[in-house]
Amino acid sequence: METQKGDKNISARDSSSNLVNRQTKTDDTIINVNGIIIGGGEIVIIAGPCAVENREQLLETAKKVHSGGANLLRGGAFKPRTSPYSFQGLGEEGLQYLNEAREITGLPVVTEVMDTRDMEMVCNYTDIIQIGSRNMHNFPLLKEAGKCRKPVLFKRGLMATVDEYLLAAEYILKEGNDQVILCERGIRTFETSTRNTLDLSAVPVLKQKTHLPVIVDPSHGTGQRWLVPIMAKAAIVVGADGVMVEVHHKPEEALSDGQQSLYPEDFVQMVREIEEIARAVGKELYHYKPLPA
Amino acid sequence: METQKGDKNISARDSSSNLVNRQTKTDDTIINVNGIIIGGGEIVIIAGPCAVENREQLLETAKKVHSGGANLLRGGAFKPRTSPYSFQGLGEEGLQYLNEAREITGLPVVTEVMDTRDMEMVCNYTDIIQIGSRNMHNFPLLKEAGKCRKPVLFKRGLMATVDEYLLAAEYILKEGNDQVILCERGIRTFETSTRNTLDLSAVPVLKQKTHLPVIVDPSHGTGQRWLVPIMAKAAIVVGADGVMVEVHHKPEEALSDGQQSLYPEDFVQMVREIEEIARAVGKELYHYKPLPA
Amino acid sequence: METQKGDKNISARDSSSNLVNRQTKTDDTIINVNGIIIGGGEIVIIAGPCAVENREQLLETAKKVHSGGANLLRGGAFKPRTSPYSFQGLGEEGLQYLNEAREITGLPVVTEVMDTRDMEMVCNYTDIIQIGSRNMHNFPLLKEAGKCRKPVLFKRGLMATVDEYLLAAEYILKEGNDQVILCERGIRTFETSTRNTLDLSAVPVLKQKTHLPVIVDPSHGTGQRWLVPIMAKAAIVVGADGVMVEVHHKPEEALSDGQQSLYPEDFVQMVREIEEIARAVGKELYHYKPLPA
Amino acid sequence: METQKGDKNISARDSSSNLVNRQTKTDDTIINVNGIIIGGGEIVIIAGPCAVENREQLLETAKKVHSGGANLLRGGAFKPRTSPYSFQGLGEEGLQYLNEAREITGLPVVTEVMDTRDMEMVCNYTDIIQIGSRNMHNFPLLKEAGKCRKPVLFKRGLMATVDEYLLAAEYILKEGNDQVILCERGIRTFETSTRNTLDLSAVPVLKQKTHLPVIVDPSHGTGQRWLVPIMAKAAIVVGADGVMVEVHHKPEEALSDGQQSLYPEDFVQMVREIEEIARAVGKELYHYKPLPA
Repeated sequence: METQKGDKNISARDSSSNLVNRQTKTDDTIINVNGIIIGGGEIVIIAGPCAVENREQLLETAKKVHSGGANLLRGGAFKPRTSPYSFQGLGEEGLQYLNEAREITGLPVVTEVMDTRDMEMVCNYTDIIQIGSRNMHNFPLLKEAGKCRKPVLFKRGLMATVDEYLLAAEYILKEGNDQVILCERGIRTFETSTRNTLDLSAVPVLKQKTHLPVIVDPSHGTGQRWLVPIMAKAAIVVGADGVMVEVHHKPEEALSDGQQSLYPEDFVQMVREIEEIARAVGKELYHYKPLPA
Repeated sequence: METQKGDKNISARDSSSNLVNRQTKTDDTIINVNGIIIGGGEIVIIAGPCAVENREQLLETAKKVHSGGANLLRGGAFKPRTSPYSFQGLGEEGLQYLNEAREITGLPVVTEVMDTRDMEMVCNYTDIIQIGSRNMHNFPLLKEAGKCRKPVLFKRGLMATVDEYLLAAEYILKEGNDQVILCERGIRTFETSTRNTLDLSAVPVLKQKTHLPVIVDPSHGTGQRWLVPIMAKAAIVVGADGVMVEVHHKPEEALSDGQQSLYPEDFVQMVREIEEIARAVGKELYHYKPLPA
Repeated sequence: METQKGDKNISARDSSSNLVNRQTKTDDTIINVNGIIIGGGEIVIIAGPCAVENREQLLETAKKVHSGGANLLRGGAFKPRTSPYSFQGLGEEGLQYLNEAREITGLPVVTEVMDTRDMEMVCNYTDIIQIGSRNMHNFPLLKEAGKCRKPVLFKRGLMATVDEYLLAAEYILKEGNDQVILCERGIRTFETSTRNTLDLSAVPVLKQKTHLPVIVDPSHGTGQRWLVPIMAKAAIVVGADGVMVEVHHKPEEALSDGQQSLYPEDFVQMVREIEEIARAVGKELYHYKPLPA
Repeated sequence: METQKGDKNISARDSSSNLVNRQTKTDDTIINVNGIIIGGGEIVIIAGPCAVENREQLLETAKKVHSGGANLLRGGAFKPRTSPYSFQGLGEEGLQYLNEAREITGLPVVTEVMDTRDMEMVCNYTDIIQIGSRNMHNFPLLKEAGKCRKPVLFKRGLMATVDEYLLAAEYILKEGNDQVILCERGIRTFETSTRNTLDLSAVPVLKQKTHLPVIVDPSHGTGQRWLVPIMAKAAIVVGADGVMVEVHHKPEEALSDGQQSLYPEDFVQMVREIEEIARAVGKELYHYKPLPA
């Protein structure tokens, strides 16, 4: 009883009437996170380290991305790792550092939850709950996020089709939470020169099918630092409402994803370039005040 | 911080010393489930409906598969469904019917758990905990299964490589539970005439790399009833320790996976044929007494 | 003795010294096609029908794309079709119409060759030889194109990695023809809402690895008319030297690929938008004079 | 105008009336190659080196596979290689050695053709023409094979669906040659522990859809010597009409595919085991006289 072709029961009701669909709600869903507007026509920038590794690393990086133009801070306290012997995150301690970073910078915080038992606690700390790619089909977690009072940043699975992705998002909306931000972050293909293949055409396809905002994560989408700014700009051109990128104050020392983490100065430069591209397509960055060059 | 190529942190320790590996433990792991031996050289048959739909359906099917040669009974009480509008399972009520079926037939029971919060309750009912494909990378669930005192039937993810699969199994063993049964159940490919593509060469590859028993699920692997017996027999030839198949007393009325569910009489015939193939490769079916033809 | 992982003989010589590589030749290869410069820093537009269907269709479409800003005319006379019962192209008659279109519009012509026996004849008609995705591993055809005196537009295979693609291009260069234009045109993935998945990150990856010019085909890459202009603009942002698109004067009557063919007026509008994006990234369209709006 | 989803013109006629289909011709097609019957209910074994490397290697290997139970000899004179710097085959010289091997052993010969210009010459030497995976969509080559008077061993493409594969075979039949042998040889998946993933369920699916004989190539399907006999036996169980395997008298010195080539003694043992499995499913090996053990 799983997801694929052949499952006749997918359309237990007419899927065009699903809550995620544009036919059901034609207006764009606009999400207000502590005063930051996502999906309102202006581009938001989410940045921060892959994992919260320690207090200094997080606060240092948070200040850098704040001054460089980020609107929200990302950072993982619970980390899904392929191997049980890899760094698994700081847990609640990491959430406390995120709190502190919010107080210092004013940036709302995005962090991942992996376990239904942690949902309430994570909700108490974070401004946006992230559900990661590996949990796209973790239905109890989706239902729990649907009962939560915080917006959900919901990432596409590594091999999910757009339609499967939207049906999974439906689990969250069905429970009463329509504050869902979708995130294209690359799909698994046979290409080996990038970590995943960023499926940029999924952005306009999603914007056509659903009223939910769509952001792009070029860090996981490419797995390589030098490609992140290039693909971030392309994401804006295809209609993304924002981008989420990994930044580390010392990428070469990162406990995870160092290869794809931007140096703070790369981030500053990338935001500048995103702003130029945004203007070329008639958009603006949300509340952007460029640093003096 | 996810699973793919490029994640330098996968080998935080020398992966050859992982608990799942044959180098670490050369002898086959043999699992005793209420007296049924899995991985001991004889072939086990796990059968039952995809979902527990109601008392009559489960008991009816349980009796049929018992008399036809099944060693264990499968049936889902918690169902991961692509759409939130599809039948989601009976929950604890379904577990009670499984208990009743065990009492009547004597067959140990396998059922899926999807939520860490349900682990203890499900453990109290079931003989083997199943973790499904979609939760292969649900690490909190794997850790919880690792703390559990019951064997775990752990299915390969739809696009997981064998190495990723074994690293995920490592999460369970690392927590102290080495009673893990692996299950090849088809991977997603571009082929459309089957629901998934059953990767039979994964069976000898797994048997070479790990000491854990390996079974095959040709029902999900093919998605089509007529292919199930054919692929079940091939599974034995490539070295599987058993097969798990979906049987429904009235497949055309099934709430899920009817298309791939065997009729009880197909099941009886399939077990007979599996037995002949098993003998041809020098094996036997576990405690098999064929019905009079 | 085929292409995949495991073929130890791929590196019969140090592949970094291959003729396609930037290490071997650091300067960009610039291709002059009857005075049109490809790879010289300005963006070229290749447009025309999927197939040459008849004289009127080709000439009508050719005039439209010429006035709309195309630098080169595409059109297939030999068509690779999945089914032998689909329209297979006009053959040499189609090439004669392409000749006529060139005389009328002045646009150089790109057309596909599928058979080594046709190479010389096609060379006599066309300005650029196209080798299609399905023939990426047709080595005799690549060798023959390598002996040819015309530039080659060489499309990436549907599931080829970038490295396999470059090794295939090496077959052309090795025979003495270094006038090769690479073309990203989408790869096969599990996504069903687009025909293929346009792999835009392959563009900067290719530009880093090779000195050859790289164009993008968003028509095949998406399979849907409305997505073509969006992805064409993104292609410019990621560094493509040009785009190739399908235009038909009456897409609803097209004998092939009507669904992804632009109406002539869409094309005009798309080129205008590409020009704005090109300016935003500091580039220009090659010899572009916009039509009066 | 390529193969994928979205191509509305695939069914230019009702595809169920295609020449390859069982609806069109219900009886199995039986192919007689110099007295060897393929598709007649008995299992045929095709064996030999990946490439004809020199006279001694071919004759030595041919004698070994002949005495071990092979019914036909395979060997490539024209080799499709990912890199132009890899061994490309001996060409016509290789065909002459195949002739000599046929004279000595009596085994009919299978060899690949890659170029339409070579079709007539290769036909004059070989008993069965092979068209390889990479040329599954080389339509001019398929048409030329269709005009040829020799049986065609036609391999499935690395990412072709069964339906695309049958439509490609239709090109051969449509030209008048219905002596086509299909060959499953593995498809590209994300699994890395095997070279490809042998899609064994494709065998019964093909046998249901078409009247053409189907063989399996576990050498390319797995890429690893030790897996070849295991998967060859499974191929028989799922209904294959035969297997084709690579054998080399000195695999460690092979110019291509040494890793997946059987030692002659492995081959002898494998044929013995295939025979036992064949008997278990009520079949026999074609004209098999086992060597004294």
